[in-house]
Amino acid sequence: MSRFPLYQGVESVLAGNIADGSLPPETQLPSEDGLVQRFKVSRTTVRKAIQNLVERGLVEVRRGKGTFVTQPKITQELTELTGFVEDMQALGRTPTARLHDKRIVAADESVAHHLALEPGTLVVRIQRVRLADGVAMSFDETYLPRDLGEKVVGDDLEAEPVFALLEDKYGTPLVEAEYQLEAAAADPVTAHALQVLAGSPIFLIERTSYTTGNRPVDYERLHYRGDLIRFVTRLARRAKASMRR
Amino acid sequence: MSRFPLYQGVESVLAGNIADGSLPPETQLPSEDGLVQRFKVSRTTVRKAIQNLVERGLVEVRRGKGTFVTQPKITQELTELTGFVEDMQALGRTPTARLHDKRIVAADESVAHHLALEPGTLVVRIQRVRLADGVAMSFDETYLPRDLGEKVVGDDLEAEPVFALLEDKYGTPLVEAEYQLEAAAADPVTAHALQVLAGSPIFLIERTSYTTGNRPVDYERLHYRGDLIRFVTRLARRAKASMRR
Repeated sequence: MSRFPLYQGVESVLAGNIADGSLPPETQLPSEDGLVQRFKVSRTTVRKAIQNLVERGLVEVRRGKGTFVTQPKITQELTELTGFVEDMQALGRTPTARLHDKRIVAADESVAHHLALEPGTLVVRIQRVRLADGVAMSFDETYLPRDLGEKVVGDDLEAEPVFALLEDKYGTPLVEAEYQLEAAAADPVTAHALQVLAGSPIFLIERTSYTTGNRPVDYERLHYRGDLIRFVTRLARRAKASMRR
Repeated sequence: MSRFPLYQGVESVLAGNIADGSLPPETQLPSEDGLVQRFKVSRTTVRKAIQNLVERGLVEVRRGKGTFVTQPKITQELTELTGFVEDMQALGRTPTARLHDKRIVAADESVAHHLALEPGTLVVRIQRVRLADGVAMSFDETYLPRDLGEKVVGDDLEAEPVFALLEDKYGTPLVEAEYQLEAAAADPVTAHALQVLAGSPIFLIERTSYTTGNRPVDYERLHYRGDLIRFVTRLARRAKASMRR
């Protein structure tokens, strides 16, 4: 006799299949009927096992479609200024990029503010989809001052990271960046670029990178798929005396 | 003759009304017809003015309902370990709390992992809605080890911040915390607690706070309304030599 409830057996076999890659991400699980037959257990047992896999984040139920193995989330540190290529390489993923558009546009209020320009000043906008192991992770809009941007758009933006171009080719070292993080719903443009449904959860990160002399040289709007990434950091408590004053 | 396009006049009058509080957050703007009559301009001019206000984030169009003044987002620094009451006080907001539930529960895998306990260990769970100036900002689930939690639940959790209780009353100084940030869609429980639609954008922050000796004493799941808050931080670029190695 088993010492464990039957559903735990079903759950651990399926979790094992997911862990060893025999059920890869995006695979559909067999139907309830199929699992009842395979494991010779009741429908209630199968449902309890599936429910636990959902709670563990290993599978997800898509209404009217079935149960699918989820993409595991990437855990990315938010502790220093790094670009997408550096981030993915540090995680052992292969980064690629698809260029959607590059053009000169008039800076709107927000772009102008972040690049310390007057609204309406011409700037270069680069739109790319960034992929990790072939999966679209982020839709990035990069705004550069016109002088720098016109150099950068001459390079192969599917192969060369903008940070590397700025630092290594155009003598513009990056010193630090301001980050602003929002949780949002994907607008139609972002949804199309990332191939998710409009309204899907999105991390919107606005990042302004500064070179020496506290001069902003790169303002980005990064739209990360909320279901594929989490950010982690570690923060210290302020010394008590100063905190209470 | 005006030196500016007509829509700029309409836009700046409405933006002024929003700024001075005569059109407070959540107020519905008059209809297009109403604005046409009030400003004696064309419908095209009104539409252009509204479009600019949308782009500035001052109003939002709710399909089938009309155009409404938005709640301005709170900008909160993510630079040191602070609690909700400290955060809101630093921003000049009045924090309050509504206690939803406090009880002893068995730690699931995640709670147990973060508090360095065995799964199934009994812990104390506190569920609260946190408000700023009377607006529900966050639905918080706080998990405490049972010994500490059983003391804390005897206090007035609508009036006393848990961080203050731990530090000032129960001799448990906080040293630092691990943060994990996700962009998610509100599940039905969170949506109900925050009075938003299920599926609305949510910042899910999991925070584990450590006391001396690197001992985890407080694991929280904070569900912030994505439309009401943004987090900001500033990160430095790593020195180049170490980065490329």
